[in-house]
Amino acid sequence: MSVHNQPQEGASEPGWKTVWWEEDEQGAAVCLVDQSVLPQAVVSLHLRHEQQVADAITTLKVRGAPAIGVTAAFGMALAVCRFVQEHEGTALTIVEIMAHLRAAGKLLGRTRPTAVNLFWAIERMLQRAEQVTQQSLSPQQLARLLRDEALAIAAEDVAACLSMGTLGASLIKDGDILLTHCNAGALATAGLGTALAPIYVAHRAGKQVHVFVDETRPVLQGARLTAWELQQEQIPLTLITDNMAGHFMRSGGINAVFVGADRIAANGDVANKIGTYSVAVLAHAHAIPFYVVAPCSTIDLAIPSGDHIPIEQRNPEEVSAVRGAQVAPVGVRVANPAFDVTPHQYVTAIITEKGIARPPYDVSLGQICSEHNTI
Amino acid sequence: MSVHNQPQEGASEPGWKTVWWEEDEQGAAVCLVDQSVLPQAVVSLHLRHEQQVADAITTLKVRGAPAIGVTAAFGMALAVCRFVQEHEGTALTIVEIMAHLRAAGKLLGRTRPTAVNLFWAIERMLQRAEQVTQQSLSPQQLARLLRDEALAIAAEDVAACLSMGTLGASLIKDGDILLTHCNAGALATAGLGTALAPIYVAHRAGKQVHVFVDETRPVLQGARLTAWELQQEQIPLTLITDNMAGHFMRSGGINAVFVGADRIAANGDVANKIGTYSVAVLAHAHAIPFYVVAPCSTIDLAIPSGDHIPIEQRNPEEVSAVRGAQVAPVGVRVANPAFDVTPHQYVTAIITEKGIARPPYDVSLGQICSEHNTI
Repeated sequence: MSVHNQPQEGASEPGWKTVWWEEDEQGAAVCLVDQSVLPQAVVSLHLRHEQQVADAITTLKVRGAPAIGVTAAFGMALAVCRFVQEHEGTALTIVEIMAHLRAAGKLLGRTRPTAVNLFWAIERMLQRAEQVTQQSLSPQQLARLLRDEALAIAAEDVAACLSMGTLGASLIKDGDILLTHCNAGALATAGLGTALAPIYVAHRAGKQVHVFVDETRPVLQGARLTAWELQQEQIPLTLITDNMAGHFMRSGGINAVFVGADRIAANGDVANKIGTYSVAVLAHAHAIPFYVVAPCSTIDLAIPSGDHIPIEQRNPEEVSAVRGAQVAPVGVRVANPAFDVTPHQYVTAIITEKGIARPPYDVSLGQICSEHNTI
Repeated sequence: MSVHNQPQEGASEPGWKTVWWEEDEQGAAVCLVDQSVLPQAVVSLHLRHEQQVADAITTLKVRGAPAIGVTAAFGMALAVCRFVQEHEGTALTIVEIMAHLRAAGKLLGRTRPTAVNLFWAIERMLQRAEQVTQQSLSPQQLARLLRDEALAIAAEDVAACLSMGTLGASLIKDGDILLTHCNAGALATAGLGTALAPIYVAHRAGKQVHVFVDETRPVLQGARLTAWELQQEQIPLTLITDNMAGHFMRSGGINAVFVGADRIAANGDVANKIGTYSVAVLAHAHAIPFYVVAPCSTIDLAIPSGDHIPIEQRNPEEVSAVRGAQVAPVGVRVANPAFDVTPHQYVTAIITEKGIARPPYDVSLGQICSEHNTI
């Protein structure tokens, strides 16, 4: 079989892919553009073991909540495809496959704690497998079915991005100057992105936009990834250090902020890349709309507020060294929370693929999540 | 002659120097610790030409408004000492020396536009020379007189730092958690520093303090210089990226912010390192006192507000590359203002060597500047 979801001309995705599925004579592969080396090098990875997929998530070769979800789904499919292929000719039982799939879910679930899309995707793959365990499927049939479920998750993400882009673009006026933090673009999803999708759609519709891009220390996703993406799309941008955001809100005519999210609580509190909270407070002080763009899979109605979102603490060396070069004195104590929580009071609207939620979020988010998917 | 102001045991300065004057058989030298290579290397520079002094200021080998002022004063003295020494045995006139001194003032004044201490120090050296042109001094006598004036400026800076430290320490309680941005420590002055002086004095008085240090992109003065200084003094610190400040104001129990200043307008608007404005807005949103610590030489009563302060735009490569390693895609547009302006509404108090100014600053700053120096 030869199934893949690589980019096509005229598609609603950009001319390169963040995460995709390939099958060749060696078997199945989860494919990624290695975001840890962008933009200095554009390297495609072909991962053939779920452990490699988990490692790629942990080491930020792929990042961004929706992309992590799609990658984890592909990782689950890969775990079964590989397991079935390796045991070809043996009497592999569905019970054994399910045990292997659950182990893969545990492995992938340990990679990063904050983005809820990861757990959502793992859970959906497990549920899909459990739905069909009563059917007398062959191991190969189960593997194909899980592969198709992962491809469906990826395709839904592409469609959700386009929908968020279209909805969000209605909030962008011709001539707007926008600001974004971290990377919530095509590199953070399987499609057009979350926060950048409205900007892509507005730009393609002929609106003039200019994007201020926070570099986003410590891992510099803004400088390395968002700047690269926008440059590929020929969208005018100005790269700034994170601490310049307030200065340019006061003096640079910024009209709106667009950011993504890693998890949204039932009350509208938003966990996103460290620094998002500071941007939200600054936007509020300057009466600039602060928009969060995220698919419904990012909304975690099971938690009442942002206080319940676990915040990943990452390696201090991401701060004390920059791209491998030590900058701080040796032995200095460093804090490195990867995310912060923006209370819902600072969020003007949450743009999902099913509609734009406005305060009060404890009402609007529940309504949006319960709606039928109209994509 | 052998005059220098190198550190002494038991002095009110730290155990190393930022800028000092030396004289040896080769003549006079302006000496600096090269801050562009700290903390990975501690290198002393001996500069024997005013052009080298100007270059050192431009390339941030020395930085910090008061230290720039002292360095410029030494540079003016060096210009004359060197000129007189080179023309020994010739019939050098005072008119020729004054022309040379004015040229040195122009050279040093072109280095950096924002810090007013630079222009203040150059002007004071010129005025001192002009005061004595009617006296029939020998070239050597004039050179010594200007050297002594520069040493006086340095000594006054040491005393001012100690006074700001003592006054500011009264605002620090035992157990306080403080936040600072950039480096306004001993490395930014000839003495104990400005923003860090109260912290040094409080710590030496036995108060427990913990300092959150913004790394301060793009040049990382916080990570490289403030972290190093505090580490030398064994003051507990946590290094953070600039975009974490809001998160730790919300969750980390920060009690007060202390920053320095490069120029303060008559109405209390403060120009300081880029990012200071964002920190001030965040402090305001969290009801955290925001203190500016600066000597009176930083106050520019000639300008009514911060709108009149020229903001230096520096090389884009400071942003697109980090410590020499390219991070952003090639060709990306970058903004790199070195400073921003914090409106006086966000400033809780301005701590000078002559007293603590409180709002309304258009009254209090004028009063403080007109007071006799009581140090």
